[in-house]
Amino acid sequence: MLTTSRGEIPTPAFMPVGTRGVVKTLSPEEVRDIGYRMILANAYHLYLRPGHTVVESLGGLHEFMQWSGSILTDSGGFQIYSLARMSKVTEEGVLFQSHLDGLKHLFTPELSVAVQEALSADIIMCLDDVRGYPIEKAEASDAADRTTRWARRCLESKKRVDPALFGIVQGSMFSDLREMSAQSLTSLDLDGCAVGGLSVGEPREVMLEILEVTVPLLPDRSPRYLMGVGKPVDILDGVLRGIDLFDCVLPTRNARNGMLFTSKGPINMRNSCYRDDPRPADPHCACALCANYSRAYLRHLFLEKEIYGLRLATIHNLSFYFQLMQDIREAVEQNRLRYFAQEFVSHMEEHND
Amino acid sequence: MLTTSRGEIPTPAFMPVGTRGVVKTLSPEEVRDIGYRMILANAYHLYLRPGHTVVESLGGLHEFMQWSGSILTDSGGFQIYSLARMSKVTEEGVLFQSHLDGLKHLFTPELSVAVQEALSADIIMCLDDVRGYPIEKAEASDAADRTTRWARRCLESKKRVDPALFGIVQGSMFSDLREMSAQSLTSLDLDGCAVGGLSVGEPREVMLEILEVTVPLLPDRSPRYLMGVGKPVDILDGVLRGIDLFDCVLPTRNARNGMLFTSKGPINMRNSCYRDDPRPADPHCACALCANYSRAYLRHLFLEKEIYGLRLATIHNLSFYFQLMQDIREAVEQNRLRYFAQEFVSHMEEHND
Repeated sequence: MLTTSRGEIPTPAFMPVGTRGVVKTLSPEEVRDIGYRMILANAYHLYLRPGHTVVESLGGLHEFMQWSGSILTDSGGFQIYSLARMSKVTEEGVLFQSHLDGLKHLFTPELSVAVQEALSADIIMCLDDVRGYPIEKAEASDAADRTTRWARRCLESKKRVDPALFGIVQGSMFSDLREMSAQSLTSLDLDGCAVGGLSVGEPREVMLEILEVTVPLLPDRSPRYLMGVGKPVDILDGVLRGIDLFDCVLPTRNARNGMLFTSKGPINMRNSCYRDDPRPADPHCACALCANYSRAYLRHLFLEKEIYGLRLATIHNLSFYFQLMQDIREAVEQNRLRYFAQEFVSHMEEHND
Repeated sequence: MLTTSRGEIPTPAFMPVGTRGVVKTLSPEEVRDIGYRMILANAYHLYLRPGHTVVESLGGLHEFMQWSGSILTDSGGFQIYSLARMSKVTEEGVLFQSHLDGLKHLFTPELSVAVQEALSADIIMCLDDVRGYPIEKAEASDAADRTTRWARRCLESKKRVDPALFGIVQGSMFSDLREMSAQSLTSLDLDGCAVGGLSVGEPREVMLEILEVTVPLLPDRSPRYLMGVGKPVDILDGVLRGIDLFDCVLPTRNARNGMLFTSKGPINMRNSCYRDDPRPADPHCACALCANYSRAYLRHLFLEKEIYGLRLATIHNLSFYFQLMQDIREAVEQNRLRYFAQEFVSHMEEHND
């Protein structure tokens, strides 16, 4: 269980991604009706547009977007690395050009905290020094060390009592760097720890190995968050290794591409085999899509590029992820997670007709 | 009051456009919650994709799209004219190439009725011979006559008892042709009459003149429908001249372009003056947008191209139209429609700040 001033979130939990102050295509009521109590938003994007001071002047992000649940904001480290142009890391912070208009900005640990506090997020993340994959060990070491030094500055600059502040373990795919990063971060007075820099193109076994080295070093009295991961099977692997919190664009982004998660593996709704198929997308699902509509109708909406199709598919995929997390929590309680994971994976490999 | 087997629709009424079996961006519940009990769909589009036989095999359009209210389908005459390639009118019907794949189709009055019956529409329209504007009088006369002959064939080919069949008055902007068309159509045993071929680029006064000539010739015991019209002020003008039923893409299409109808005239939500505006789009509106969100948030969604913005704007504009029709019905009951129309127009010309 994870507790914020907005309520309790049973863990392990998955957070839908609402980068710009909206979970793409959905209303806050729809996100809540699926069962979610916490979403992810992003400091980099909201800092650039509409501006954190605008959001603050309108009562903070919860009020702005009418979301009464909890919000975790990412610090912007990853987005500056992946989106901004000409980013340059110094000890002070990251100098970058906005991907929107090319204007220069200096994002420091202190500014990242100030932005996230202005947004009134319930959980805020320390700014991390994010590098590409693969990288040289010296660069990875340097970035991981800097991430810890920046975490200390984030802690010192934090003004509000309410939000929890999480640190981010870096160290690329080097086990000893990950150990060092985890140990130095956990010596700080942080409210939780995230594992960053995974699921960036490395082989699956490497990710699992890094998790196995890192997670045991993170205190189990506070939440352990695996950032940006992932596929249902990755989430199972993460929970098996002690992760409590996940986020990923996969269910929402894939939905908009017509790819639906089902208990028997993914299906693509554009497929002509669904042309006059009266069955629900997933007969085992009770979401607003599966309770009401045929595969034929959803396919029709996708072929006609009708926005309502994107909504229904998004509701379905987020419902699938929510049900998965509920099943995982139940399996953990009943001490049969390993068995559940095996069953889940074998079902996912059945053929959909 | 207009009655179908699905229920009663207080008139004058506006129908949201759901051409392809969905009111763009909205769920059927949202359309119903605004207050609408009848929508418009289209025989041409649904015949081409997904195919009327597919919709029929899945239980008809109401079941397909989960809309429990009434549905009026347009016959396809206007869409063949405006969208199809190489359309050629003969006495038998219209030969055209699909705008989707170039395949040739022959749409006859009989096929149009069969398509609309397969869709299980509650009100179906006769196939009309639609021409451009301006046209020569001889061509307009020919097309109006053919439209009446086709209406007779539609009536004869109708197999189901349930749906009401409406004819369409044509005759371009020639008063005498309109009179002739209205008189010959109303001699048939039709359940209602529509005025087609208006709001196609003609001056406003010309449209009003044609309405004034045509509507008095249509029986007032059955509904009189002005197709594809229009702006709020056009609807007022139509009601003042005896029209009961309207449809138009304007509220939904303009919404997706960020243009919101308000009691003080239209506003464009992209305007930078709304950057940090905490007020609702229209303080006099109680829709899901205006009850919950600031102009600043809606502007943010539009700038970020977030689909949820299109939804909220669509809900607002359809709510505005629904409220307008409710106000019109009240004014008609209280015998003060002309006063209401004057007040409405003068408010619409006030400046929004």
